[in-house]
Amino acid sequence: MSNGCVHPTDSNVSIALLHYPVYDKNRHVVATAVTNLDLHDIARAARTYGLFRYYVVTPLREQQVLVSRIAQHWQEGWGADYNPKRKAALELVNIADSLVGTVEKLEKHYGKKVKVVATGAKGHSKSISYTDMKTLLQGSDQPYLLLFGTGWGLTDEIISRADHVLTPIIGASDYNHLSVRSAVAIILDRLMGQH
Amino acid sequence: MSNGCVHPTDSNVSIALLHYPVYDKNRHVVATAVTNLDLHDIARAARTYGLFRYYVVTPLREQQVLVSRIAQHWQEGWGADYNPKRKAALELVNIADSLVGTVEKLEKHYGKKVKVVATGAKGHSKSISYTDMKTLLQGSDQPYLLLFGTGWGLTDEIISRADHVLTPIIGASDYNHLSVRSAVAIILDRLMGQH
Repeated sequence: MSNGCVHPTDSNVSIALLHYPVYDKNRHVVATAVTNLDLHDIARAARTYGLFRYYVVTPLREQQVLVSRIAQHWQEGWGADYNPKRKAALELVNIADSLVGTVEKLEKHYGKKVKVVATGAKGHSKSISYTDMKTLLQGSDQPYLLLFGTGWGLTDEIISRADHVLTPIIGASDYNHLSVRSAVAIILDRLMGQH
Repeated sequence: MSNGCVHPTDSNVSIALLHYPVYDKNRHVVATAVTNLDLHDIARAARTYGLFRYYVVTPLREQQVLVSRIAQHWQEGWGADYNPKRKAALELVNIADSLVGTVEKLEKHYGKKVKVVATGAKGHSKSISYTDMKTLLQGSDQPYLLLFGTGWGLTDEIISRADHVLTPIIGASDYNHLSVRSAVAIILDRLMGQH
């Protein structure tokens, strides 16, 4: 978790993992629980692909405290000495109450509007290809926030309010039920990896 | 876990996650413990990218029993009804004692030699690019086994005996400490995704 001082990158791209509002299995809007490995895996991927911040978004106070404790363990506890690579990743973790709060934090930092890029397993009329999105990310200092949903994904309302929606990941079958951890890794690699 | 009957793909590509022999933090050769999310995330990625099998390799009997119980829960227990998508993924899971045993099983199935493709965070004199490997995978019915290490990675001996070694994943920084779950997702997408 950031202490507000030094950060390893000045990238214009951040990521947010939404725990609310997202769908559950029956398409009810819920708040999901934070998963320990979501913090670690996504922080490590965010660090590998040089992102500015990794926002863990939950309105639940006790969940925020949990995230804070895990992140601090690896930055200040014995975890920091045991595994400095983990420290470097978890430094990117920030906690936010809501998507609106996340965007506000970023806009305050950059001093300009942030564009939100939603992701999901379904197509959308606003869909943008990975090639086109990669060009947008590289072409300017426009700040972007990549948005991922936990549970059964981002709500239609969140998606409809985004500036862009990435096309779904297509593998080599009609099965597209990747974990959010896998989806983040693949999308960061498609948008920012050196192939 | 397979019952030996119907399988959803006739792909020539499988994956193995090695829990022994791998390095620990201090470069000692150890057997690591199976992680629940390694089963789920990698099975879902393997299914998405149309692989033939996902071998979980451990010589430890109690760990094999654990893998078997988790896989069966999602195929035959209430998990199968609760989440059929998870069932379709975990059907690909097979358990093996060793890398040699894994290769033997595959060679028996295909009736021909299997080529082993190692992965890792370091470069190697036998390194092959993702573009070249993708061409090899698509160009023939040669069976391939993609090999991933848990812990601090595959041993030098395993890597030196592989037929190919994939170049390390380069993100957008000099940090390359992805989780094995993220590395599997990215590599399958680079080799078999529709971009």
